Amino acid sequence: MDVSLDNATILVTGGSGFLGRYCLQRLDKQRANVHAVSRTRNGRAADGVTWHQLDLRVPGAADELIATLRPSHLLHLAWVATPETYRDSPENVDWLEASLALLHAFGQYGGRRLVGIGSSAEYGFTEGACLEDVTAIRPLSIYGKCKAALSIATDAYANRFGFSAAWGRVFLIFGPGDSPLRLFPSLLAAIVAGKPVRLTDGRQIRDFIYISDAAGALVCLLENADANGVFNIGTGRGIAVRQAMECFADKLGARDLLQIGALPRRPDEPLSLVADMSKLERVLSWRAPTPFEIGLDAVLANAAPITRR
Amino acid sequence: MDVSLDNATILVTGGSGFLGRYCLQRLDKQRANVHAVSRTRNGRAADGVTWHQLDLRVPGAADELIATLRPSHLLHLAWVATPETYRDSPENVDWLEASLALLHAFGQYGGRRLVGIGSSAEYGFTEGACLEDVTAIRPLSIYGKCKAALSIATDAYANRFGFSAAWGRVFLIFGPGDSPLRLFPSLLAAIVAGKPVRLTDGRQIRDFIYISDAAGALVCLLENADANGVFNIGTGRGIAVRQAMECFADKLGARDLLQIGALPRRPDEPLSLVADMSKLERVLSWRAPTPFEIGLDAVLANAAPITRR
Repeated sequence: MDVSLDNATILVTGGSGFLGRYCLQRLDKQRANVHAVSRTRNGRAADGVTWHQLDLRVPGAADELIATLRPSHLLHLAWVATPETYRDSPENVDWLEASLALLHAFGQYGGRRLVGIGSSAEYGFTEGACLEDVTAIRPLSIYGKCKAALSIATDAYANRFGFSAAWGRVFLIFGPGDSPLRLFPSLLAAIVAGKPVRLTDGRQIRDFIYISDAAGALVCLLENADANGVFNIGTGRGIAVRQAMECFADKLGARDLLQIGALPRRPDEPLSLVADMSKLERVLSWRAPTPFEIGLDAVLANAAPITRR
Repeated sequence: MDVSLDNATILVTGGSGFLGRYCLQRLDKQRANVHAVSRTRNGRAADGVTWHQLDLRVPGAADELIATLRPSHLLHLAWVATPETYRDSPENVDWLEASLALLHAFGQYGGRRLVGIGSSAEYGFTEGACLEDVTAIRPLSIYGKCKAALSIATDAYANRFGFSAAWGRVFLIFGPGDSPLRLFPSLLAAIVAGKPVRLTDGRQIRDFIYISDAAGALVCLLENADANGVFNIGTGRGIAVRQAMECFADKLGARDLLQIGALPRRPDEPLSLVADMSKLERVLSWRAPTPFEIGLDAVLANAAPITRR
């Protein structure tokens, strides 16, 4: 089966999302035809991407697009991602259903290589680092459950239709261009406004991965059709949320604005979610290149000019 | 939420299948309105069940039926079950998609209690007895993968729509009325014909559960809406396939016809699949009442009169 990217037709869903934009930057448009689906953009852009304006949840929409484009490669990123509400959103089941319709069409029309995107939320409460084929899957939120269901379904569809598939289980992404409601942008906005920030005790340990690195891992998986199954996408290094926020605030000389412990932690939030990265390193010699602090510097460098009031 | 069975409307899918027929027998038709879906039967039967002839895989079919009946209770058994081919059948993905459409409609039209049916095939290779919320889910076949995906999705849909749901993970069912191609019926047919039977070494350890007991556990789960999540349905006792077949052949005085070891075992077949039954026993005080040998006697008692040639 020819799964090389030369003259491939790559379809990226969720192309205008946070990860989608970084993935599109990294795809080689000289080598492959790159198409992207978005609910907002349309037409051929200067960046060499052909955009298709489409809501994949509309019955028949995925089938029609796939029948027309016949993509050889699919990077399926589209999902509900609204900060604060996506975890328990009813839209998660709509995206699960839309994703199965998309995978079905992709297989039916000769698709050869698929990369889907999951989340550390698929693991739930864990002991120690999360290991792809060992750590139990016990998601707590509707989001984590729908992603976990799709992860297993992806494997079934790959068998059924004979395409190769990888599932990138992404840990906590951050970087320039993130939604204003997410951790660092909201922290930055508050600090710039000189407002105190009410926070939990921040004892949660998380694996923060720089957005451009996560996109690199996904593109690397798309290009390597022999890499099948689930792959964690993280750094392998756990950082306490408190430490991460203090590090960020220190760069702005604003640690005094952090009100650590002012809010309770969610009881359904795992204390630790850290990737064991040995599988991706073994299979594709891939390691996240960007240290956490360099990532934070990039967030600040790309933010609007900052003057603390 | 009223989840009592009094005046409930129960819908059973796969009603004319092996498990479906036993479940329908056990449901109290005086207490609840019982409807069943089948691709072959239609109309109101003498047994108090209203039959609906329908292929749930037809787009829109599930939605239309649920909108009409508005079932409060759903026992979803329908799936591809053709012996020998169901494991790797492409129909598994069709049934996964049809099942999600069914669950979606059930939730949307006010459904309150759902019981879905899974399989020990969801576990894959295991060490020791399978424990619902601990043993890793590593299914080997398309069948096991689609069932495992639906298991997790069921949990998500229950959260999304606010119904209560249990997932019965059924081990190796046997009993009168089984498909002629399955283990004991095919063995019986060969012995009756006086033909030698070529078998593997039969070292696989399986948890054989009598069909009527498995149906009893599913109906018990349907009636107890507080029992949520995954429940193994087995006996908790492992028996080597060789021992099970010899026991059966001995009852017919035909052990000499068994050619143990004449066939290779499938390499993708787990050596052991035995249920840990502590959860169902703890939550619903349920234990499989029928000993294995009594179940085999029932198979023989219900078979056509036997004269060994």
